Amino acid sequence: MKKIAVVMGSVSDLPLAKEALKTLSAFGISAVARVLSAHRTPEEAAAFAKGAEAEGFGVIIAFAGKAAHLAGAMAANSILPVIGVPVCGKDLGGLDALLSTAQMPKGVPVATVAIDGGANAALLAVRILALSDESLNEKLKQYTQKLAEQSILADAQLQKEIEE
Amino acid sequence: MKKIAVVMGSVSDLPLAKEALKTLSAFGISAVARVLSAHRTPEEAAAFAKGAEAEGFGVIIAFAGKAAHLAGAMAANSILPVIGVPVCGKDLGGLDALLSTAQMPKGVPVATVAIDGGANAALLAVRILALSDESLNEKLKQYTQKLAEQSILADAQLQKEIEE
Amino acid sequence: MKKIAVVMGSVSDLPLAKEALKTLSAFGISAVARVLSAHRTPEEAAAFAKGAEAEGFGVIIAFAGKAAHLAGAMAANSILPVIGVPVCGKDLGGLDALLSTAQMPKGVPVATVAIDGGANAALLAVRILALSDESLNEKLKQYTQKLAEQSILADAQLQKEIEE
Amino acid sequence: MKKIAVVMGSVSDLPLAKEALKTLSAFGISAVARVLSAHRTPEEAAAFAKGAEAEGFGVIIAFAGKAAHLAGAMAANSILPVIGVPVCGKDLGGLDALLSTAQMPKGVPVATVAIDGGANAALLAVRILALSDESLNEKLKQYTQKLAEQSILADAQLQKEIEE
Amino acid sequence: MKKIAVVMGSVSDLPLAKEALKTLSAFGISAVARVLSAHRTPEEAAAFAKGAEAEGFGVIIAFAGKAAHLAGAMAANSILPVIGVPVCGKDLGGLDALLSTAQMPKGVPVATVAIDGGANAALLAVRILALSDESLNEKLKQYTQKLAEQSILADAQLQKEIEE
Amino acid sequence: MKKIAVVMGSVSDLPLAKEALKTLSAFGISAVARVLSAHRTPEEAAAFAKGAEAEGFGVIIAFAGKAAHLAGAMAANSILPVIGVPVCGKDLGGLDALLSTAQMPKGVPVATVAIDGGANAALLAVRILALSDESLNEKLKQYTQKLAEQSILADAQLQKEIEE
Amino acid sequence: MKKIAVVMGSVSDLPLAKEALKTLSAFGISAVARVLSAHRTPEEAAAFAKGAEAEGFGVIIAFAGKAAHLAGAMAANSILPVIGVPVCGKDLGGLDALLSTAQMPKGVPVATVAIDGGANAALLAVRILALSDESLNEKLKQYTQKLAEQSILADAQLQKEIEE
Amino acid sequence: MKKIAVVMGSVSDLPLAKEALKTLSAFGISAVARVLSAHRTPEEAAAFAKGAEAEGFGVIIAFAGKAAHLAGAMAANSILPVIGVPVCGKDLGGLDALLSTAQMPKGVPVATVAIDGGANAALLAVRILALSDESLNEKLKQYTQKLAEQSILADAQLQKEIEE
Repeated sequence: MKKIAVVMGSVSDLPLAKEALKTLSAFGISAVARVLSAHRTPEEAAAFAKGAEAEGFGVIIAFAGKAAHLAGAMAANSILPVIGVPVCGKDLGGLDALLSTAQMPKGVPVATVAIDGGANAALLAVRILALSDESLNEKLKQYTQKLAEQSILADAQLQKEIEE
Repeated sequence: MKKIAVVMGSVSDLPLAKEALKTLSAFGISAVARVLSAHRTPEEAAAFAKGAEAEGFGVIIAFAGKAAHLAGAMAANSILPVIGVPVCGKDLGGLDALLSTAQMPKGVPVATVAIDGGANAALLAVRILALSDESLNEKLKQYTQKLAEQSILADAQLQKEIEE
Repeated sequence: MKKIAVVMGSVSDLPLAKEALKTLSAFGISAVARVLSAHRTPEEAAAFAKGAEAEGFGVIIAFAGKAAHLAGAMAANSILPVIGVPVCGKDLGGLDALLSTAQMPKGVPVATVAIDGGANAALLAVRILALSDESLNEKLKQYTQKLAEQSILADAQLQKEIEE
Repeated sequence: MKKIAVVMGSVSDLPLAKEALKTLSAFGISAVARVLSAHRTPEEAAAFAKGAEAEGFGVIIAFAGKAAHLAGAMAANSILPVIGVPVCGKDLGGLDALLSTAQMPKGVPVATVAIDGGANAALLAVRILALSDESLNEKLKQYTQKLAEQSILADAQLQKEIEE
Repeated sequence: MKKIAVVMGSVSDLPLAKEALKTLSAFGISAVARVLSAHRTPEEAAAFAKGAEAEGFGVIIAFAGKAAHLAGAMAANSILPVIGVPVCGKDLGGLDALLSTAQMPKGVPVATVAIDGGANAALLAVRILALSDESLNEKLKQYTQKLAEQSILADAQLQKEIEE
Repeated sequence: MKKIAVVMGSVSDLPLAKEALKTLSAFGISAVARVLSAHRTPEEAAAFAKGAEAEGFGVIIAFAGKAAHLAGAMAANSILPVIGVPVCGKDLGGLDALLSTAQMPKGVPVATVAIDGGANAALLAVRILALSDESLNEKLKQYTQKLAEQSILADAQLQKEIEE
Repeated sequence: MKKIAVVMGSVSDLPLAKEALKTLSAFGISAVARVLSAHRTPEEAAAFAKGAEAEGFGVIIAFAGKAAHLAGAMAANSILPVIGVPVCGKDLGGLDALLSTAQMPKGVPVATVAIDGGANAALLAVRILALSDESLNEKLKQYTQKLAEQSILADAQLQKEIEE
Repeated sequence: MKKIAVVMGSVSDLPLAKEALKTLSAFGISAVARVLSAHRTPEEAAAFAKGAEAEGFGVIIAFAGKAAHLAGAMAANSILPVIGVPVCGKDLGGLDALLSTAQMPKGVPVATVAIDGGANAALLAVRILALSDESLNEKLKQYTQKLAEQSILADAQLQKEIEE
């Protein structure tokens, strides 16, 4: 099975990236985490993206805040599906990162998930890999089932709590 | 190779959807276009999403404007990767659709592309399918190459135009 | 008298939902609280909405944040009046939930109240039920009167405080 | 059956208001249209709201743009359910009217629908009146059914068009 | 000299209102503070506005948050200059109140100051009253002078601090 | 009676400024229109503001778009009440001008009216001058009365139109 | 004197870029216009930026819309001052491009000018080059003078027009 | 080498300004910090800008929040390159300051950096001065190199941390 690359513009994005890594690990998917900046290390970032397919990566997940260009830089240098996670900032609540990630020009798409959506980025990568991996497909169905059950359980507990 | 489902909340989204269909067709990918509304035909929409994997679809692309719930409804009822295209409206410029599509809760991701980004949605689907299709992978590389060449040609023409 | 359904996308919305429940209880209206997610338990959510009228509910109040689809999913599956409460998030201050709830397409309305407006959602439901319930109508008039009196009292206390 | 009041802040809102009136008329509901301004005729507006219940109105629908206070003024002076329709302007796309209508303070709710959502405002009023009117309830179910059928028909036509 | 009315939609706006009161007091201007709600006590609010001119008020300053209608309600019921202070909320940072206060329709102006701008509202009132009050005009010039001196002093202290 | 200064950052603001001039003229108020730019002619702008009081002006109305600094520059150089009119642009709908005009720092207030609100700026100036001018006060009351009558007439015509 | 590079993400930005070129030409500054895309030709874009200093460029002006990464890519690959011009789009009015250009992370600055501000980008470049070019400095002072004179002339014509 | 002026609208902007001063100092550039307000001390601000070139300044960096006019006032009174730093506020997250700083009218540019971007403003000034200063150019290249190395080191530490 292909590996997932989890790249982040700054080490300060690590807590969010760890949500993605934890989710991927729960699905038994190998992941590599990298600090790569579209602005501070543009060559390293481009080189990583260019080599990603050959190194066995199937999806690149990129975390970046503010004028978030990292996902776009990955998508410009690789034909792999790139998932962008806009990181919430102290000023504009991540609206800047959301627009910088989602509003890509024609020809070079980025799959944007919610602001600070590390877990969802991982789950989107799982959905993509599961297309050609029977066992992962099965795990994803179980996950979805469990997600529903947790919600149903929360509902049941709420009913109980109210009755008491 | 898996097919792509192109669903739209309203037939008024067809011009945008056609951009996606045309792009997919250029890559030789089979696509099915459907009008399905998360609000007007919720059962049909859910049924379609539930059956999509079994019917041989690999990716669902969903177009919707305003309180754009269609992509989310697809993702809630299928484990396939779902790509959401926020459609620009006359009032808020598509900001409502962008937020309604991208800000999905933990557990159910949608891969959001730019407002009115029909072609990019198709290209993202191509990137996903190309992960397990050698020939598509090749075509994608050629496309990316051609994209660069067109830009380089535009640059060359600009130089010529300026010189004259 | 008809009951009110108070549904929430996640148990984390409970504190807000409790404001609605408390207000309904103060008017002597029976309410049922449910955790139902448009994305994690779409079938349960749709089933609940479809059965709500037959089960004696008169109004459905739905709490959801981010890409808030729950109220829309209720309105798509029931002809009851549906009141949507956009829940404030850490990033965009609830603007995403407000737009996702209010900007519904033609044909399927949601009655949107203010961000985090749990009490107002309940009061709107009371206004609706009071249309065909003499005693509730009376209570609502008393409530409105009391609301005015509290404001007048606050004004009186302010005058006193300033004089001292 | 109770009547519906359709009030508008300015006669320039009439085209939108007519969408509401047409929809109400299709359901056989009596409606009265009034030009009443929260700012230019505050007394007339307040007087209308205060008398609305006694005059047999069941719901007030208010159209207003910019700093849209009309729906709030209706809700402040009547215990009837008030539906606010934010009107799109040339500058801010109706965001000002949406916030002015939806963000009501605790105690006085307004049921806000989408920007320029005249038809949906009427349909929300129908949902409310249908709670205590068997025949209207039936018509609403037929409407919802027809809405689905139109979407299904559009889908069928799309399939046909593509085949050809 | 005319008095200033400082009205607030809720007693929770008092801390901001006190900034205005303190500033007015520093200029020796009589002010009356009132809790009056456009939504909870619309009659009292309208009555106050209607009587304000006769009671010797020269300017009305209105504090309100969210769908801030209070300043508009004052301006609709009085020909006095009305100053609106949008109050910052927990969700949208006061953008809702700013738009609800500033975007008034043609015919009924509100003089809007910055979000939470209690002191500036008072200073604007002072500027207005100073038009026909020689002594106040003098005080205002002194205030403006002092404002400049404080800034110049802060600059001087900064130079000193840096040198050390 | 004092005169009104109507200043605009660019001659392209003249159509909006004429709305103010026309309104002032209808009230018999002398007005002077000036093109003065906070950025292109800062000295002339400052000099005008500094001399405005001595030249018999009572209020300064300033029109400016984009990073609208003109009203602020007037208020920084004069103790007269300054009314700012944010001018709508082609990109951000005037939100930039609204924020640049309204969000003034503590100490230097600007009375901001609606985006493109030329007529309301004039009416606000009239309200201010009417504080110390009996005859203007009377005219303002007549204007307000006429405004109400026009709205009532529009309502009457609507009733007639509907009946026919 | 150093040359100016005017780069644009797409040939559709040419009309805006021509405003910059025309302004630079009026100051007698040599400029080179290039179509270079951060996403479609990332290598060419990076190579250009890397070589820009050696090729005698003093400033790079970059035009880009939507998720505007071009200015950032220039700044990441060159130590020259980079001026970013956010290009207005059909959906969000250029807010996306403004945030993508201005909100650069610590370490890699972009000098952002107004949305569609081609002429101002050129003038900022002129200001920069004029720091070490006596003759350009002189021309800039003349330009600034002329700018003031045009505004003063517009004012004079307005006075004349009004008198007539 | 020319000096840099670091001006701030209020002494409360000093912490941000110190980031700029520290960065400039690290490059061995002389800087002068001043508290100058476009609104409270407009004459001092204009005088400073007018004299800045003659006093040996090469670039002016201006910090201001809310309706941030300081950078614009500097640019209106000097032909030096002016860098504006929008300061984040408690209400609108600095969006007001960003728009007030960036959206300058044609003729008078301001080089806007990110909200609270004190360090980047300094680095932009360094880039400008380095155009005509060999030694500074060298330091800037070393800084850029170090920036990359820090990112690469953070990446290396991340790899180590993950392995352990």
